[in-house]
Amino acid sequence: MNRPLEGIRVIDLGRFVSAPFCGMLLADMGAEVIKVERPGKGEDGRSLGPFMNGQSLYVPTFNRNKKGVTIQTRSPEGIQLLKDLIRESDVVIENYRPGTIKKMGISYEDLKAINPRIILASISGYGQTGPDALKPAFDPVAQAVGGLYSITGTKDSGPLGAGTIISDLTTGIYTAYAILAAILQREKTGEGQYIDIAMVDCMISMLHTYVANYSANGIIPERHGNRDPISAPADCYTTKDGYVVMHAGEDKTYELLKKIVGDPRLEDHKFDSHQGRVTHQEELEGYLHEWFAARTAEEAEQALVSGGVIAAVVHDMPRLFASEQVKARQSLVQMEVPGAGMCTFQGSPLKMSGAPVTYTRAPKIGEHNEQVLHDVLGRSEEQIKALAEKGII
Amino acid sequence: MNRPLEGIRVIDLGRFVSAPFCGMLLADMGAEVIKVERPGKGEDGRSLGPFMNGQSLYVPTFNRNKKGVTIQTRSPEGIQLLKDLIRESDVVIENYRPGTIKKMGISYEDLKAINPRIILASISGYGQTGPDALKPAFDPVAQAVGGLYSITGTKDSGPLGAGTIISDLTTGIYTAYAILAAILQREKTGEGQYIDIAMVDCMISMLHTYVANYSANGIIPERHGNRDPISAPADCYTTKDGYVVMHAGEDKTYELLKKIVGDPRLEDHKFDSHQGRVTHQEELEGYLHEWFAARTAEEAEQALVSGGVIAAVVHDMPRLFASEQVKARQSLVQMEVPGAGMCTFQGSPLKMSGAPVTYTRAPKIGEHNEQVLHDVLGRSEEQIKALAEKGII
Repeated sequence: MNRPLEGIRVIDLGRFVSAPFCGMLLADMGAEVIKVERPGKGEDGRSLGPFMNGQSLYVPTFNRNKKGVTIQTRSPEGIQLLKDLIRESDVVIENYRPGTIKKMGISYEDLKAINPRIILASISGYGQTGPDALKPAFDPVAQAVGGLYSITGTKDSGPLGAGTIISDLTTGIYTAYAILAAILQREKTGEGQYIDIAMVDCMISMLHTYVANYSANGIIPERHGNRDPISAPADCYTTKDGYVVMHAGEDKTYELLKKIVGDPRLEDHKFDSHQGRVTHQEELEGYLHEWFAARTAEEAEQALVSGGVIAAVVHDMPRLFASEQVKARQSLVQMEVPGAGMCTFQGSPLKMSGAPVTYTRAPKIGEHNEQVLHDVLGRSEEQIKALAEKGII
Repeated sequence: MNRPLEGIRVIDLGRFVSAPFCGMLLADMGAEVIKVERPGKGEDGRSLGPFMNGQSLYVPTFNRNKKGVTIQTRSPEGIQLLKDLIRESDVVIENYRPGTIKKMGISYEDLKAINPRIILASISGYGQTGPDALKPAFDPVAQAVGGLYSITGTKDSGPLGAGTIISDLTTGIYTAYAILAAILQREKTGEGQYIDIAMVDCMISMLHTYVANYSANGIIPERHGNRDPISAPADCYTTKDGYVVMHAGEDKTYELLKKIVGDPRLEDHKFDSHQGRVTHQEELEGYLHEWFAARTAEEAEQALVSGGVIAAVVHDMPRLFASEQVKARQSLVQMEVPGAGMCTFQGSPLKMSGAPVTYTRAPKIGEHNEQVLHDVLGRSEEQIKALAEKGII
């Protein structure tokens, strides 16, 4: 089947999440993504939990649809082998600390010299340039420095990060987008280019209208949890068996909400206006929390949505796994974890009529050494054996 | 200058954030993105705050580098005009409720019939398919249904959303990636395709290893705020003048931390092991919070980072605007807001050696009506005047 990135070969030097996730998005679209790991232990993420029957679930989550090879990049012969592969490739992805690839002899200048069409994408915390380039960073640092911590949380909680590795993952998507843009540009120019993506920059790009509002009005956003400072009622409500988010701040929606809830206290004229509901928010939300507390999450959502009010049950893992919508969209998929069994993972959100995503489990360490070295570099069985004996692969 | 998406024409029917943000990412790479709005009021986001001297900053944040045209899509003549534009275009982006474009007569089948090369990208909350497709959704709903609320927050806070519209924005990036993949596939097949992206699916794709861990071990992730349930010390600490995130859970890092902090209580042997630090986390974090409370955020970060411990100041808007790194990376940019003045916005995180992003302010409502209708459709001044008089544009 013709796939969007068929014929594109990617050397994925990524570790942990951001770069491997980027490589996975390219693999999902049909690129031949070769995950390069150190012989023996593999990439650093291989040892991280969670585990299934002793097997790590970390690399399997972020490396589906790839081939796996091992190269000892601390030896000149290993670097030469890596460069031989890069000469035959279109894209290289890496998330070492800035400066590392230069020391390794695979900077953009080094690679351009052997393959002018190569597209090199470097992911780092603060970026390859600027005074903070060499500061250590990982996801929480990028969320904090990029501004997300300062706006996430409640008045009491202090700054919080998002509950998942948002900066690693959004950086991976942004980088995949930049790589495809570079491939399209290369079709016109014949030349590759260097892509320098910083997790902090990616977080900053997602600060909604807070940047403009501070610039224009000096307003520093407050942490207001699930409330909406300029509209009420709006919150995350506790039910008998879970939580429901609801927003009914518009006058029209509040009228619908009153019909559904049927609590005479909501009829008080001080709640008639948008401003009145914001002014008396605590009292109003109190009445509504009573209504939610008397129902199951599904009952509350059903009553509100069918009445024309936007509301949704907060999905925890059990509810997510049980969701008919998730099943219909195939948002969760099954893949094998070698040595452990079948496991469910999140699927790709890219539903494309001409390019349905298929799922092949992440490679074992060096699983495709023979295949890749033979098919891409034409190495013989003997040559490959020799490389293995010398610990190069 | 040769840009990656030069020659690609995009009809952007988006409203609010997800689809307009996607269109903006394409425009940043050099696509000709034509933002279509209703005559007069423009898109729904035009009326939203924050404001600068009475001008909304909402549309300017998510629509830079685009052209603006108006079309009355409730009239058959307007739809015909829209279809004439789509016949001459490569991509259409929309985030109406599922079913709306079919009613408008611009479903993928309708568009394919007039332009087999067209790529149509539809963004919705739950997706175009499945039992929940028609449920109302916006960013908080997608964060809640996609699982992010259930894992964000503290033990006391209950489920929280991220402090910014993560699902709108990540969906916009994912969709831009899918569109470029479809363009690359079209170069081989000559055919466009339909792209169906759900904000909920995008959120699910970002659930880290929580999905696999629940599948393998039945573990439902807890909301642990900034703590790391399996590693200590790790938290967001309050200083004299702000907050600092620090992670020093590894044995080696804890040794470095002890040298920096110099508090004899940290030498207690019960803190020697990884497990011991987790078991006595409350006590350990208490000592560290004392150390942070006695310093400014910048002093604490400086001492920790120079001592080899990963730490970072939490940037609020003033710190973000003052950051030398932000200036060096040009992560914030200035653009004009017509009728209000110059304003600072977040810039693109895509730093590409061959495709630097330039910044042109978002268009006014219908600013490019004459230019687009003349250049793309060859309409005469008289024809354009007539369309305006009839309220079609």
